Parts: sequence; structure tokens; C-alpha cells
Amino acid sequence: MNAGDIDRRYAEARRIAQGAGGLALEYFRRFDGLNVEVKSHQDFVSEADRNVEAFVREALVAAFPDDAIVGEEDAPKAGTSGFTWVIDPIDGTTNFIHGIPGWTVVLAGVAGTRTEVGVIHDPNHDEMFHCRRGQGAFCNDRQIGVLKGRDIHTGSVGVGFSGRTRASGIKRLVPEIIDAGGVFYRNASGALSLAYVASGKLLGYVEEHMNAWDCLAGQLLVAEAGGVVEDQNAATMVAQGGRVIVGAPEVFDGLLAIAERAFGSG
Amino acid sequence: MNAGDIDRRYAEARRIAQGAGGLALEYFRRFDGLNVEVKSHQDFVSEADRNVEAFVREALVAAFPDDAIVGEEDAPKAGTSGFTWVIDPIDGTTNFIHGIPGWTVVLAGVAGTRTEVGVIHDPNHDEMFHCRRGQGAFCNDRQIGVLKGRDIHTGSVGVGFSGRTRASGIKRLVPEIIDAGGVFYRNASGALSLAYVASGKLLGYVEEHMNAWDCLAGQLLVAEAGGVVEDQNAATMVAQGGRVIVGAPEVFDGLLAIAERAFGSG
Repeated sequence: MNAGDIDRRYAEARRIAQGAGGLALEYFRRFDGLNVEVKSHQDFVSEADRNVEAFVREALVAAFPDDAIVGEEDAPKAGTSGFTWVIDPIDGTTNFIHGIPGWTVVLAGVAGTRTEVGVIHDPNHDEMFHCRRGQGAFCNDRQIGVLKGRDIHTGSVGVGFSGRTRASGIKRLVPEIIDAGGVFYRNASGALSLAYVASGKLLGYVEEHMNAWDCLAGQLLVAEAGGVVEDQNAATMVAQGGRVIVGAPEVFDGLLAIAERAFGSG
Repeated sequence: MNAGDIDRRYAEARRIAQGAGGLALEYFRRFDGLNVEVKSHQDFVSEADRNVEAFVREALVAAFPDDAIVGEEDAPKAGTSGFTWVIDPIDGTTNFIHGIPGWTVVLAGVAGTRTEVGVIHDPNHDEMFHCRRGQGAFCNDRQIGVLKGRDIHTGSVGVGFSGRTRASGIKRLVPEIIDAGGVFYRNASGALSLAYVASGKLLGYVEEHMNAWDCLAGQLLVAEAGGVVEDQNAATMVAQGGRVIVGAPEVFDGLLAIAERAFGSG
């Protein structure tokens, strides 16, 4: 796969994210007007999730039939091109369900074991965060960068957690951040938080375990925005997920030390 | 002061919040386009805060010259009408500074020792949360309500903290919420979080100490939306602030118990 092939995928990923974001936003707004019971809520959200994922998959298959696709909802689709799409149609489902405008459409493109393309689209705020390895990070048409020359006292550190890990990790992480003089921030969308780090809205982000579809795009975005990202092998992340630590250059080492104390090094 | 006097203040509070929100949003958008150093950022934010507060104060003085005004930024203004405005021109300043669209304009109106009017305006999402005691809670023109029939496992609990309290409280609060089977949410705007409880986006909110300008409007909003609010005397809150615990009916007692364990009962 040559650079032109990846460029085409970068352009297409943004186009698809735009369409998927619009579709998801329609559901979100219809949903916000409803006053239905929990059961119907969940049916409605499942329908939204399913249809947005179908939209993304069908668009990817139409454009790049030989690419593989891995996502949260459906079974993986094998490919022969060596390029894998790692997608989350709606990251931040709890926010989506509860009418909180903090969720995103996420597409990452992996060639071999390296993420080459990352797109995180926040349709509520009309912000598309995107990057192609080696070309910098952008929000819409504007180049973005992580915070510079800052220490942990001067901003917020995003945190996330899920039922996939023991509770002890997050229970130690928050006090560790406070003890280091920081403040934590949890908006319940890991991908949006990573985009916030890349665009200088948060100092960094720490989560004990993220799935690939929630983090690969954001990790590349932070790296391309001048931030530091704990090294991960994309293939391993696609297979089983892993720990995510990213930060502005001056705070990363501190966040890594905090994470080691909170989660252990194993 | 009769009901009509309070009705007029309710209508005027919404009109003023709308104007102040528009002014703050202009600053926020200009600011988001800047790529300036931290020092200039802070000057810019101070200017925004100061000018939005001046806008609110001048509008209140023009409409109700005999009312008292208490706010975060300027010295209190005494009044003779028995009605006190408690205002925060920009709640969520850290978000505002960092380009995160999570901040609000807050006005509460207190007659004697009771909050009678609450307005929390979120101009980024064009959502004005408002209430008049005894008349229900609204977002724009739509009546809102807290989550019903839910337990702590089925949503998120907002938390907040500040440098005004010892760190031990929040360090215990987060693990207590996790141990109870809940998840925490921190968007760094206490007033917006309270509006989220009132509109069924969060299950509840807990903070060890809030100032009156950050919480009185939201507490009335939650009560008018069918939620439970830990009893406070508004005059005491205006003078020194206090602990804030609000929640959906089925989760409030659990949150109170969590707060007691985290903060102590004293």
C-alpha cells in the first residue's frame, strides 16, 4: 500500500465520519425529545448504534472492498489489502443515552501494525479531529497542538474506566492525580477526551484499559499534535486493547508515574 | 414582595442570561481561535469574566435598582427590596479557558432565605435551564424532570471539588461511588452538572463545598424537576456556601450515605 492509497483512505474516512455523525445526531435529537421509559430508550439507542455502524461499514466496503474492519458492535470482517479499519460508530454511549452532547464517531486506519489515519468526529460541536501520520493533527481545517510548557497544576487530566478492569485501578488513580496537585476530568467519552488532549483542552488522559476502536485514532491524534503517547503495538491493541497514557510533553512522565502507582506495572 | 414582583424577576433573569450568554460565547469563540501564550489567555479570560459580570450587574441594577447583588467577582451590592441576586457570570472558568464547551451563566434570585428563581444558561448548546419555585423546571420551553425509577448502577453521578476544601474529601468520594456500583462524572462546571441532574442526564451530584452563586439556581432546578436536595438555608449558603447533595428520588439516600462516609457528617 503506497502513500496515495493511504491518502485516499484519509479523505474517505473524514467523509464517512461526517455522514455517520449527521445520522447519529439525527437520532440523538429525536431521542432527546422523547420522554419514554428506559426499556424503549435502550431499544432506540441500540437502533441508532446499529444503523450508524451499518452506515460506516457499508461506506467502507463500497470504497475499499479489500480492507478489513474491526468494530465494537459487529463481527470483524477479514480483508486482503493489509489495511484494517478500526471503528466505533458512537463512542460515549452512556452520554448518548442520557442526552449529554459528549459522544463521537471514531475511525482509525491501521496498515500492518501502525495506525496511519485517525478521525474523531464530534457532531454536536461540528468539530472533526483528524490526522494522517506525519502530517500533523487538525480540528476541521485548523492545525491543533497539545498544551506546551505546562505542569500538572495548570489544567485537567482526563480519566476513564470501564467494567473491563477491576475497580481498584480507578480508585487509586483519582487520589494519585489529586496528590500530584492535579484535577481529574471525566466526560465519559474516551475518544473525545483524547481529542481534547490533542487540541490543548486537557493536559493528558489515563485509562487502564481501552479497546482499539476507542483509542487508536486518539493516540495518533495526540502524537501528531506534539504530545507523548505510551508505546503500543497497534496489532496487539486491535486484538486485546490495552493501557492508554497520553500527555503534553511536560506532564507525560508524571502521568506515567501516576499510572504505574495506580495500576501497577504489570 | 408579591408573586408578580417575582414573576417579573423570573422573566428578566432569563432575558439577562440570554444576553450574557451571547456575550460570553463571542469571547469564547474569539478565544478559541487564538494561539497565544498562557499569560495572554488569562488576561483575555479575565476581561471576558469581568465584562460578562458587568453586563449582568448593569442589567439587574437598571431593572431592579433596589435589589441586592452577590457574585463571585465583584463586591456585594446592598439592596432594600429584600430580594438578592446571586450570580456567576461564567461558571466553569477552567473549561472556558481551555476551549471546552462546558460553562454556563448562572443567576439565582433569593427572597428572604428562599431561592425563588433559578436560571442556568448553556449558550454552547443553546439550552436555558430555568425555574420559578412551585412552577416546575424547564429547558427552553420544555418541562424537564429528574430520572425516575433508577438505581445508582444505571447512570452517572456528577462530582465536583475545588481548592476550598481539603483533598481528602474528593479522594474518598470517588472510591465510595465506585464501591456503591456507580460511575462518576466530572465536567468541571458545577452549575451545568446540577442542570444535568434536573434534566435526567445525571443521576445526582455531590460536592463538599459550593459557593451560593454556583449552586442555588441548580438546587432549585433539581427540586422543581422532582429531585431531592439536601436542605440548606439560602441565607447561610449566600454567606458561606456549603455542601451540595442532590439526586433522583431513588438514589438520593444512597448519595447522602456516600457523602457522609466521604466527608464526615460534621
